[in-house]
Amino acid sequence: MRLRNVKNASSKVESSAYIITNPKEYRGKFATLFKKNQPLSLEIGMGKGDFLIGMAERCPDVNFIGIERYPSVILRAVQKLEGKDLPNVKLICMDAKEVDEVFDHEISTLYLNFSDPWPKTRHTKRRLTSDVFMAKYESVFLGQGRVIQKTDNIDLFAYSIEQLSKHDYMLEKVTLNLAKTDLFNVETEYEHKFKKLGAKINYVEAVKRPKK
Amino acid sequence: MRLRNVKNASSKVESSAYIITNPKEYRGKFATLFKKNQPLSLEIGMGKGDFLIGMAERCPDVNFIGIERYPSVILRAVQKLEGKDLPNVKLICMDAKEVDEVFDHEISTLYLNFSDPWPKTRHTKRRLTSDVFMAKYESVFLGQGRVIQKTDNIDLFAYSIEQLSKHDYMLEKVTLNLAKTDLFNVETEYEHKFKKLGAKINYVEAVKRPKK
Repeated sequence: MRLRNVKNASSKVESSAYIITNPKEYRGKFATLFKKNQPLSLEIGMGKGDFLIGMAERCPDVNFIGIERYPSVILRAVQKLEGKDLPNVKLICMDAKEVDEVFDHEISTLYLNFSDPWPKTRHTKRRLTSDVFMAKYESVFLGQGRVIQKTDNIDLFAYSIEQLSKHDYMLEKVTLNLAKTDLFNVETEYEHKFKKLGAKINYVEAVKRPKK
Repeated sequence: MRLRNVKNASSKVESSAYIITNPKEYRGKFATLFKKNQPLSLEIGMGKGDFLIGMAERCPDVNFIGIERYPSVILRAVQKLEGKDLPNVKLICMDAKEVDEVFDHEISTLYLNFSDPWPKTRHTKRRLTSDVFMAKYESVFLGQGRVIQKTDNIDLFAYSIEQLSKHDYMLEKVTLNLAKTDLFNVETEYEHKFKKLGAKINYVEAVKRPKK
């Protein structure tokens, strides 16, 4: 995503009621931050929030947390949430690398939308489906975790399929052209622009197999 | 594949030393038909044989059997083999549906190249990675089986990924653009024509997980 620096983004972000400024204090008890005790979904790299907010509006029976590294990006999501009354959304400005230090066996579904593909081999570890991240997710998920990834990058997609399979996830739903399916879908900002160009979006929904 | 009927194709095919005319008699003992006792690979839907013959030439330490339903198609492979001395190739004119009646725990690797996608839901069972076929392969494989599929059809590819995962295969190698990888590859007739048009080929290599 093209980043534009926004003056005082951090302080503007922190003043929003949608933002959790001290996430590590809620480790293992994020449920307490929401009005209703219901399954908790996490989006890593939520960007400007179109997907997260759209999902929260359409799925009131699920709580959503979105994380995003850049204050000037998350600020856009905060601005979109102003004036809305969505009790099932919270946002955290943090690095994905810390995901296992922030969440403790409390996430049901993890969304990875149009993540950075990190195409170079020496950057493999940075991909959100690398061994490093797959190991972190183990302690983030409550019970059998579900990973849902969308991407236009075919190399990242193929890599994720291999990684999810390697880490014992069952690939329940796979498509190489999301628009042609009847799968429930809320678009991200990027996806919206990208689809207009007629490009195909790859989608995988995978669930961790029970330990035998 | 476009089929052209060839006069007396059946009798022409049967007279070739490369053809096994009575395959059920060799059930469980196909190894006895080859000069060397070495791993046996099977291609279902070998068409005119470019892949099978190319593989046999490049991999002398593997025995190959190709099956194909149509005599007028398999005849082309027989003609290509005439004059070659390939002790590690045999062909069978048979329907894939009978694969479990012909082979019994003796195949190490199964190749499915550009199989008919059978796009209609009511034809799902006919796809070579349907539950029906996956069950048949169980008794065809010796030990942990390996399935290698190439296809330009993205719907068949996505379906196969789901099916292989469902049937407890680990998806070891996946790519959505085979030409861009350094994976060992022998082209089929179809693939050769198709690649010239600049289209992408999907590839998956999957191995059955050991029973826990």
